[in-house]
Amino acid sequence: MSPVPLGVGLIGCGYWGSKLARNFHALPESRLLAVADLEAGRRAHAAEHYPDAAVIADARRIFDDPAIEAVVIATPPATHCRLACEALAAGKHVLVEKPLATSLADADTMLAAAERAERTLMVGHTFEHNPAVEKLRELVASGLLGRIYYIQATRVNLGLFQPDINVLWDLAPHDLSILLYVLGQMPIALRAEGRAYVQPGIEDVAWLTLDFPDGLTAQVHTSWLDPCKIRRVTLVGDRQMVVYDDLAPLDKITLYDRGVERPPFTDSFGEFQLSYRYGDVHSPRLDWVEPLKRECAHFVRCVREGLPPRSDGLAGRRVVAILAAASRSLAAGGERVELAPLTGEPPE
Amino acid sequence: MSPVPLGVGLIGCGYWGSKLARNFHALPESRLLAVADLEAGRRAHAAEHYPDAAVIADARRIFDDPAIEAVVIATPPATHCRLACEALAAGKHVLVEKPLATSLADADTMLAAAERAERTLMVGHTFEHNPAVEKLRELVASGLLGRIYYIQATRVNLGLFQPDINVLWDLAPHDLSILLYVLGQMPIALRAEGRAYVQPGIEDVAWLTLDFPDGLTAQVHTSWLDPCKIRRVTLVGDRQMVVYDDLAPLDKITLYDRGVERPPFTDSFGEFQLSYRYGDVHSPRLDWVEPLKRECAHFVRCVREGLPPRSDGLAGRRVVAILAAASRSLAAGGERVELAPLTGEPPE
Amino acid sequence: MSPVPLGVGLIGCGYWGSKLARNFHALPESRLLAVADLEAGRRAHAAEHYPDAAVIADARRIFDDPAIEAVVIATPPATHCRLACEALAAGKHVLVEKPLATSLADADTMLAAAERAERTLMVGHTFEHNPAVEKLRELVASGLLGRIYYIQATRVNLGLFQPDINVLWDLAPHDLSILLYVLGQMPIALRAEGRAYVQPGIEDVAWLTLDFPDGLTAQVHTSWLDPCKIRRVTLVGDRQMVVYDDLAPLDKITLYDRGVERPPFTDSFGEFQLSYRYGDVHSPRLDWVEPLKRECAHFVRCVREGLPPRSDGLAGRRVVAILAAASRSLAAGGERVELAPLTGEPPE
Amino acid sequence: MSPVPLGVGLIGCGYWGSKLARNFHALPESRLLAVADLEAGRRAHAAEHYPDAAVIADARRIFDDPAIEAVVIATPPATHCRLACEALAAGKHVLVEKPLATSLADADTMLAAAERAERTLMVGHTFEHNPAVEKLRELVASGLLGRIYYIQATRVNLGLFQPDINVLWDLAPHDLSILLYVLGQMPIALRAEGRAYVQPGIEDVAWLTLDFPDGLTAQVHTSWLDPCKIRRVTLVGDRQMVVYDDLAPLDKITLYDRGVERPPFTDSFGEFQLSYRYGDVHSPRLDWVEPLKRECAHFVRCVREGLPPRSDGLAGRRVVAILAAASRSLAAGGERVELAPLTGEPPE
Repeated sequence: MSPVPLGVGLIGCGYWGSKLARNFHALPESRLLAVADLEAGRRAHAAEHYPDAAVIADARRIFDDPAIEAVVIATPPATHCRLACEALAAGKHVLVEKPLATSLADADTMLAAAERAERTLMVGHTFEHNPAVEKLRELVASGLLGRIYYIQATRVNLGLFQPDINVLWDLAPHDLSILLYVLGQMPIALRAEGRAYVQPGIEDVAWLTLDFPDGLTAQVHTSWLDPCKIRRVTLVGDRQMVVYDDLAPLDKITLYDRGVERPPFTDSFGEFQLSYRYGDVHSPRLDWVEPLKRECAHFVRCVREGLPPRSDGLAGRRVVAILAAASRSLAAGGERVELAPLTGEPPE
Repeated sequence: MSPVPLGVGLIGCGYWGSKLARNFHALPESRLLAVADLEAGRRAHAAEHYPDAAVIADARRIFDDPAIEAVVIATPPATHCRLACEALAAGKHVLVEKPLATSLADADTMLAAAERAERTLMVGHTFEHNPAVEKLRELVASGLLGRIYYIQATRVNLGLFQPDINVLWDLAPHDLSILLYVLGQMPIALRAEGRAYVQPGIEDVAWLTLDFPDGLTAQVHTSWLDPCKIRRVTLVGDRQMVVYDDLAPLDKITLYDRGVERPPFTDSFGEFQLSYRYGDVHSPRLDWVEPLKRECAHFVRCVREGLPPRSDGLAGRRVVAILAAASRSLAAGGERVELAPLTGEPPE
Repeated sequence: MSPVPLGVGLIGCGYWGSKLARNFHALPESRLLAVADLEAGRRAHAAEHYPDAAVIADARRIFDDPAIEAVVIATPPATHCRLACEALAAGKHVLVEKPLATSLADADTMLAAAERAERTLMVGHTFEHNPAVEKLRELVASGLLGRIYYIQATRVNLGLFQPDINVLWDLAPHDLSILLYVLGQMPIALRAEGRAYVQPGIEDVAWLTLDFPDGLTAQVHTSWLDPCKIRRVTLVGDRQMVVYDDLAPLDKITLYDRGVERPPFTDSFGEFQLSYRYGDVHSPRLDWVEPLKRECAHFVRCVREGLPPRSDGLAGRRVVAILAAASRSLAAGGERVELAPLTGEPPE
Repeated sequence: MSPVPLGVGLIGCGYWGSKLARNFHALPESRLLAVADLEAGRRAHAAEHYPDAAVIADARRIFDDPAIEAVVIATPPATHCRLACEALAAGKHVLVEKPLATSLADADTMLAAAERAERTLMVGHTFEHNPAVEKLRELVASGLLGRIYYIQATRVNLGLFQPDINVLWDLAPHDLSILLYVLGQMPIALRAEGRAYVQPGIEDVAWLTLDFPDGLTAQVHTSWLDPCKIRRVTLVGDRQMVVYDDLAPLDKITLYDRGVERPPFTDSFGEFQLSYRYGDVHSPRLDWVEPLKRECAHFVRCVREGLPPRSDGLAGRRVVAILAAASRSLAAGGERVELAPLTGEPPE
């Protein structure tokens, strides 16, 4: 006998929220019972598409509805903490969009609230449910790439400006969650530079450099102002190199059997000698499932079976810790900021 | 009556020197009279291809030859200063490969020697003779791009490691000479981060961020360790954006009539509103001539007519000033370094 | 006062039918009242997505429902004629998927039925509602391309085999409707070659060469067996050339100011001389609207206002005439088949 | 002890001849002793680059020079037969550019002359010496692709019109030599369609369809009028598919583990079922050597060691046989022409 579908209430039905609505509506293991949004136009749109759901302005009706076991929050980031805590206090399980919160203090408040309520708190790090990113993690874990020297991530395009957060808080959560998931470790220091061209005080282009243990460096370049859309992560290992191009229609992961070889010893009279290895290029077949669909199904399963989600509150907190440190670096004109390796806490 | 061809002596006939040899040999307005190289294998190769030239080990024979009016130096950068000064002292005109020198002091020594000798000193900033870069400069000067917000330059590939200079001194001179030529101004501060993975102490990946006047920022990303070759400069203006892809076979310059428009005033109750303009995409036809051939012809003409070269000693010195400041930033772990806006001198 | 939405019944809710359902459901000027499909799985899917529509197995209930004014047919091509005629006989307006019919006789039967019933008959040539194809037609009509020499169309990929029609009847209707719409004329002869590799008797790769008046030739290459997806039409004119790449995310139309110039006269002693003109490359901005959405809205407007649709029954018949002639050529091993220039009728 | 270098005389030093000159000059195992060309400009150019070679107008001086053992012919195709026969009659070994001749009779005359003279006759099918084409042949021979269904070859670009031969004789020899070398068999029938737009009577666009044994079909599309340069061969096998893109800078061969699977038996009540296999994508590393350099070295070695060349006179004759049959098909408006499977002889 299959279980009763999970009753879900969604708060925020804009660009991303409408995708979540579609998925929780379509999943057989969940039912979209209510959609709350402050904007009338979005409510009308939701009402048309989800006639079985209550479409409302006031999110409190979601918290009060006993049929709703789980709340999905896709509102502006600054409201995440308040709404998640109310939902948790009302006994709901919570899935919050990325970034989890806009400060480390808020993130901590949310984690504490989840623990107190004994409810699931998951953050919507979609890329952790992306088959291409899973393949990256598998490649790194297998040792096939060798030692990872550095990672270059580029996420740029024209548009989708946010009114309340800068480009780093908007776009970098994707790359940061990918990095943490793929590498399985936290950076120990970072430096962020950014510029605000179109909206005063809101950076629309930024470069974030992260130092991980063992000399591994990652740079994340984000922009709302580039004429060309690029979504690309390059991992340079000493044995193989891999490029993840999220815009490739089929072959998103390309593995280059390339590298540099140093001679085993250096003859004191010898000439400078490095040799380059140019081997095969390989794109492994990925079984594609829409990552957001997998994320939603994962959330339902974690709630139902009491499992810790892959992208749990702590994962969300780690990304917030890095973004908060990046904000401090930005504010200090690009000064280097140290992080506690496990938690990303700023040093006292 | 066409003039007697310029007698040219080349010092250094490796990867780049052999291209210079081919060009000065082929130009009707010059004659390649001598080639000096310390390595026997290269001398044999040069002797086979240029049987009319004297192929020698000792560069002094070039300085002593009265038929040689101009000396072209394509040796490791650390030797540029000494060789150029000897050539100038011997009354020769000099074309030096980029970077002009490995320190600001050396560059100053070279400029002074040229002035004393009243001879032409030119640096081989090939990209200043590249039709695509001339088109970029023309686009910027025309105002068609509007205000330039920022520039992203990427020059990465696997290989061509240098034994004596790092990736910044090796690859960034290209982008720096492009930036200075296209913008017509010097940066006022910079920050450089780099990592040395394959050869201890010699950075093989680096990120250089440059602040120009009026808020314009440029980032130059260089690497000897990327599996994919990228040669790309993006200029983001508030009216149009342009991408220069040096690897495109035909259409190297692409102009995007794209931008962000802010409403003329902001209603205090109004909603957040930015609109994106997505207009036509245009690749202007470039009349292609090999940039190095144009550079060599330009050098000959400047010598013959006593004209200041486009990429004169001062242009070479400006690039060296930036690289020297970048080295200080690198050594200080990425600290910001201020530059005098005209000369790039470090502040006392 | 806005008019009552058009009541629409859909027959066939598979791959393409489900897209039509989504559009007629979403359009404010139409209401999806009923969906008929013989397959239970598809009915379940439709019932879930369109709870306000009657979801049924028997299409006759659509013909009998007086609230339904228009019937949309997205069933296998061999059933188009019978279903369209029944719908027209019941007084419904009809939109039929491409190809309109599987024989010229069937097409004629359908046109006659529409005329008798005084109802709108439209064929779903989606590409005639595609902004990129409209731009092609505009470019040809403007004379900007000069005389069109030839057109190469390629529509290949792996998969989407059909059980009942070959690759030509499946994929070529797209290119044929594009050609007829863009050129505004019919071919006068054709030749088709094809091979059936996977399913005996059903060609999975084919090449169709069409002769238009004035020496213009078009080749259409279709395949269900190519590892790479290509959707590309090249128009070669004597003044300019244009490529329409349907898979390009933004810049689908690229105009090449390229050509060959013959000298005005030929000196009898002169050498062979042709010069090539390589000018700018230009991608005009297209205002993108989903072509199928525009097609559906166009159908509703034509029904409401009694206008002849852009892709009317005659347009559908012209494509069927070409496909029928192509089938004769295929059956005769690639023999050339003549067509009446206006109607595509075979010569007696 | 290394042997005396082979003395080589070149006749014809235009676009392609100058590449041959460069290679025979650079190879240690050959010496370029003489270059003949009717045009003074080309002679001046050759004299400047190869000061050790005799540069002459009259090819007879090459035939008469006893130091010249081998003659390389890169003149217009119509002159190949006469020049090759004179060279062979003078006891020289001969390398002739593609196409070997402009008629089957001429080709036979050349083969007979070579046999009579007991000298090597090789045709410059460069692609048979191309590592990517060798890889294609290896992939086919290994059975990895399974049964080859069909091959699509496209060789188009703007320009390089020939005054004396059409686009098929100019460009198709490349693809035909690739097909014959890779498949190891001759076509049994063909059909060619072409159009002459710019120069009356000289086709500038053509489509050639070839039937090989076992149902394998190949189409070769050539054009001098396409705005985009394409050099692409796709082999569709029932187990794997491979694309050879000659313009890819590094990864010219891409192997797609893709295919269509038919169910082992068909249930009489069952539904239509074909499944598509989308597996990994793989680009094997090719050790790149300039194909023309390998061709030249191969010629020298065959002459020296008395070995039959890979691309011998018979290989050249096979390509001529196909082109001659294609010309007959073109002249007959695209009629099918049968070929003798081994020799390409027309049926009586």
